[in-house]
Amino acid sequence: MAERNLSHFACFRLGAPFFSLGQAERSELLEGWLGELRVAAPRVELYQLYPSRGDVDLLVWSALPAGDDAAPGRFFEAFARATHRRRPALDPGATFWGLTRPSPYTGRRGSEREIDAVAGERAPYLVVYPFAKTAAWYLLPNGERREMMGEHIRVGREFADVRQLLLYSFGLQDQEFVVVYETGDLARFSDLVYELRATEARRFTALDAPILTACHRPEDDALAPWL
Amino acid sequence: MAERNLSHFACFRLGAPFFSLGQAERSELLEGWLGELRVAAPRVELYQLYPSRGDVDLLVWSALPAGDDAAPGRFFEAFARATHRRRPALDPGATFWGLTRPSPYTGRRGSEREIDAVAGERAPYLVVYPFAKTAAWYLLPNGERREMMGEHIRVGREFADVRQLLLYSFGLQDQEFVVVYETGDLARFSDLVYELRATEARRFTALDAPILTACHRPEDDALAPWL
Amino acid sequence: MAERNLSHFACFRLGAPFFSLGQAERSELLEGWLGELRVAAPRVELYQLYPSRGDVDLLVWSALPAGDDAAPGRFFEAFARATHRRRPALDPGATFWGLTRPSPYTGRRGSEREIDAVAGERAPYLVVYPFAKTAAWYLLPNGERREMMGEHIRVGREFADVRQLLLYSFGLQDQEFVVVYETGDLARFSDLVYELRATEARRFTALDAPILTACHRPEDDALAPWL
Amino acid sequence: MAERNLSHFACFRLGAPFFSLGQAERSELLEGWLGELRVAAPRVELYQLYPSRGDVDLLVWSALPAGDDAAPGRFFEAFARATHRRRPALDPGATFWGLTRPSPYTGRRGSEREIDAVAGERAPYLVVYPFAKTAAWYLLPNGERREMMGEHIRVGREFADVRQLLLYSFGLQDQEFVVVYETGDLARFSDLVYELRATEARRFTALDAPILTACHRPEDDALAPWL
Amino acid sequence: MAERNLSHFACFRLGAPFFSLGQAERSELLEGWLGELRVAAPRVELYQLYPSRGDVDLLVWSALPAGDDAAPGRFFEAFARATHRRRPALDPGATFWGLTRPSPYTGRRGSEREIDAVAGERAPYLVVYPFAKTAAWYLLPNGERREMMGEHIRVGREFADVRQLLLYSFGLQDQEFVVVYETGDLARFSDLVYELRATEARRFTALDAPILTACHRPEDDALAPWL
Repeated sequence: MAERNLSHFACFRLGAPFFSLGQAERSELLEGWLGELRVAAPRVELYQLYPSRGDVDLLVWSALPAGDDAAPGRFFEAFARATHRRRPALDPGATFWGLTRPSPYTGRRGSEREIDAVAGERAPYLVVYPFAKTAAWYLLPNGERREMMGEHIRVGREFADVRQLLLYSFGLQDQEFVVVYETGDLARFSDLVYELRATEARRFTALDAPILTACHRPEDDALAPWL
Repeated sequence: MAERNLSHFACFRLGAPFFSLGQAERSELLEGWLGELRVAAPRVELYQLYPSRGDVDLLVWSALPAGDDAAPGRFFEAFARATHRRRPALDPGATFWGLTRPSPYTGRRGSEREIDAVAGERAPYLVVYPFAKTAAWYLLPNGERREMMGEHIRVGREFADVRQLLLYSFGLQDQEFVVVYETGDLARFSDLVYELRATEARRFTALDAPILTACHRPEDDALAPWL
Repeated sequence: MAERNLSHFACFRLGAPFFSLGQAERSELLEGWLGELRVAAPRVELYQLYPSRGDVDLLVWSALPAGDDAAPGRFFEAFARATHRRRPALDPGATFWGLTRPSPYTGRRGSEREIDAVAGERAPYLVVYPFAKTAAWYLLPNGERREMMGEHIRVGREFADVRQLLLYSFGLQDQEFVVVYETGDLARFSDLVYELRATEARRFTALDAPILTACHRPEDDALAPWL
Repeated sequence: MAERNLSHFACFRLGAPFFSLGQAERSELLEGWLGELRVAAPRVELYQLYPSRGDVDLLVWSALPAGDDAAPGRFFEAFARATHRRRPALDPGATFWGLTRPSPYTGRRGSEREIDAVAGERAPYLVVYPFAKTAAWYLLPNGERREMMGEHIRVGREFADVRQLLLYSFGLQDQEFVVVYETGDLARFSDLVYELRATEARRFTALDAPILTACHRPEDDALAPWL
Repeated sequence: MAERNLSHFACFRLGAPFFSLGQAERSELLEGWLGELRVAAPRVELYQLYPSRGDVDLLVWSALPAGDDAAPGRFFEAFARATHRRRPALDPGATFWGLTRPSPYTGRRGSEREIDAVAGERAPYLVVYPFAKTAAWYLLPNGERREMMGEHIRVGREFADVRQLLLYSFGLQDQEFVVVYETGDLARFSDLVYELRATEARRFTALDAPILTACHRPEDDALAPWL
């Protein structure tokens, strides 16, 4: 089996102490934090959430190889240390994480539509949400599930410019999967989701919220929304 | 396809720091904020929510053309900057947003009952809510859905003075649609909603809350409720 | 159609700044507030909620004629101004409101069991809750609904001392109705609700919470619980 | 009908101002409060909730005769006054209350397994939760309900050391009943609840949470957990 | 019956006062607290939660023999005293607890896959969640339930390196069980949970969230994430 990667998405609300800081101090706080996070994981990306959602301000996407059993624990410890040093200016919100795994339907990985979380290029928009299927889904005959997933995959292929990543969270978080999309065109991505509503597999969706739609911050102008 | 517009509704709670300000400072804070928001979007309107709802104080409706893929990101960044500069006096609450799109049932736009978010005149009352249909709806035969929507549209036509806007949020937010109404007569609007309860399409409603009923603030007396 | 009235119920939590005030200042704050609210609506009544419920302290019931389309907007603006001037000592909680309307089942109003919100006398106890029926209810044949409501009304008539008011909130708030009862005897009112459980119409109840059970504060000793 | 009693359970979270007090001041605050509460009701008992539950610290059980229609109102006013004087050191949480009533199934009261809230002795552990049945339950033939309740009561009789009290809250709070148990042995009480899962009546349970499991504080060492 | 043990899991959020402390004071606060907790229970272990979950920072697992009826009460009192002395630096979150009990399906305890909460060694990762089955489950014929549990147990046996503990909370907390797993390999544990989705017993799961995935803190470096 190919090595699994761990992707971790952490939401933050900026706390009152953050807003009492001047522009230079805000910049220093956020840059120092990102610097420490980048020691915790080989790939760390910053996204703007508010005002796409009202309950959170920013999002951090960390990606790391998870072949070593101790890797998640080391990452969690380093992430916590970096963040706790900036609290309560940074107020932690929901986190979503999971592990990559070969698909039981396509039996392979790494198609061009698949996101490379550790080494790939980031698109302007990111959409992330926790996902779970109904109990009935897992008790269907394998052939029936395969047929429904085939229909689902065929619709997706018509939107080749939307890239995708599926993370497995069974038993690790409240959802079963974390679904990740990258796109440069939100309207087109929304059309894809609309098309998928008419597929049979949709009947077996038990959870697909909250949807986090986020804007990637380029490294040369990362902090502008919060200064 | 006609160019799509983006409409964005942002709720706010006024925070304790706001209430420690004097009347002139409150006015200056809100006017400065609205001024910066009006750079973020060509159309920005202010509404009063409390005491129509108890959990939020005011609502900002921003509307902009979304033909350019980067437009949502630019708007989100400018909106966040303007707002973060006034936090925690302004405490962000829920946001609802989506894109216009030709209706698959009428196949056209711009009927006289349809709201022009960017260039139209604003009515005294605004009603906005997130909306989703059940999974079963999207798997009905197209003809059946068309017939049910026809019945729904016929009821609506008897209330020609109530204007309407439908925004598509599939995959962008937790709901599928944002439904927007404008009216000068809340009692008559409530009658319309009551009549729609007896249509078959209602069986397929999965979500239609929270309902935000808001009062438009005229530009020459915008800030009175909060000074 | 007889003129419609608007009834508005606003819950409040007393904030930390309230409790740092002395007795005279508390009294002045609450009296000044009630005085301004009584300009916003012709009838304003004060009720004690805590410890009947744990999440809210007091309730204000405002009632006004709503024949003029602009009346709700004027009321909301005046109510907000009066309240915002006392925040954060007064911390707004949920509000419930709706409009009166002739019943489609009895076709009349003003029976002796019906509450006159604007001009009637207030009873010692008030019970208010939001209410909605299932989608299936509105698609039943009219005769079936009428029969079920008849059974419901017959049970109610055996408790002639419990007065009632039904407000329509369709499209204005998350519920369809606000149900209001006044009584001098909570045990007897509870017996009435118990009896109504065995009526067929109950199957079609989709929402009937939160229930606000409140004690009317007489004008000559209105503020005692909070001083 | 025998006189009804009212039992009222009030949860509290201790607020930050409480924890800034010294030991003697904490003791004085709590004792002064309990002294005033004991004027509000003839029987007032103090219980420890945290760390049995994480969201609340302590519980007050007040019991009083409710034959006089004005009794609930008088109790609520006195309880509120005593508590508001100690806020925000005491931060009110959920309250649950209801009235006793002869059972429609056994037609009597006062069996030895029934708790006497006003005059009985308190056991070391108390379990309280709000309870509601499905709409379908109340529309079953009376005989069917009686048979199911008989099975339920027979299981309970095998645990004669667990005492019970059923309060009616129909229309007064969001639940239909408040269920109260007293025991000296939590493991044995848990066995009773486990046995009851296999009774038919269980199918008709719509609500049985939150469960408050609390430890009685003896009067001679009432305040130890919080000093 | 073998003596029952009580296991108690307590989540905490670190409050603003904690973050205003220097490193030495933080260390002293946490060490003093753990020292007092270790008097309350013979086994007390510390775990890191954030950023595995976003709403809580750390977890304390206490285990004690519960043969003596007064044991839970004594533990609760001592735990509360130790914690309240450090509030609001320590802000209590959810707690989950229950009692061990011989399985009605295997009729025995202490298999090598079973966790010894009081005397065993701790694994690097801990997964804890509240669990409840549907009402229908308990009304199935015993043989049918036994067969489904057999299938469930067979899948588990293929993952012999994942250890497990089942606690009974019927009537004591909102859930029926607390399910506990220990593992050194989160990816493998997640595979186990994925496999269990395809077992018939899954149809009868009513609750299995929130899932707390936590990292054990070794005694010689317990506090690193929070200093």
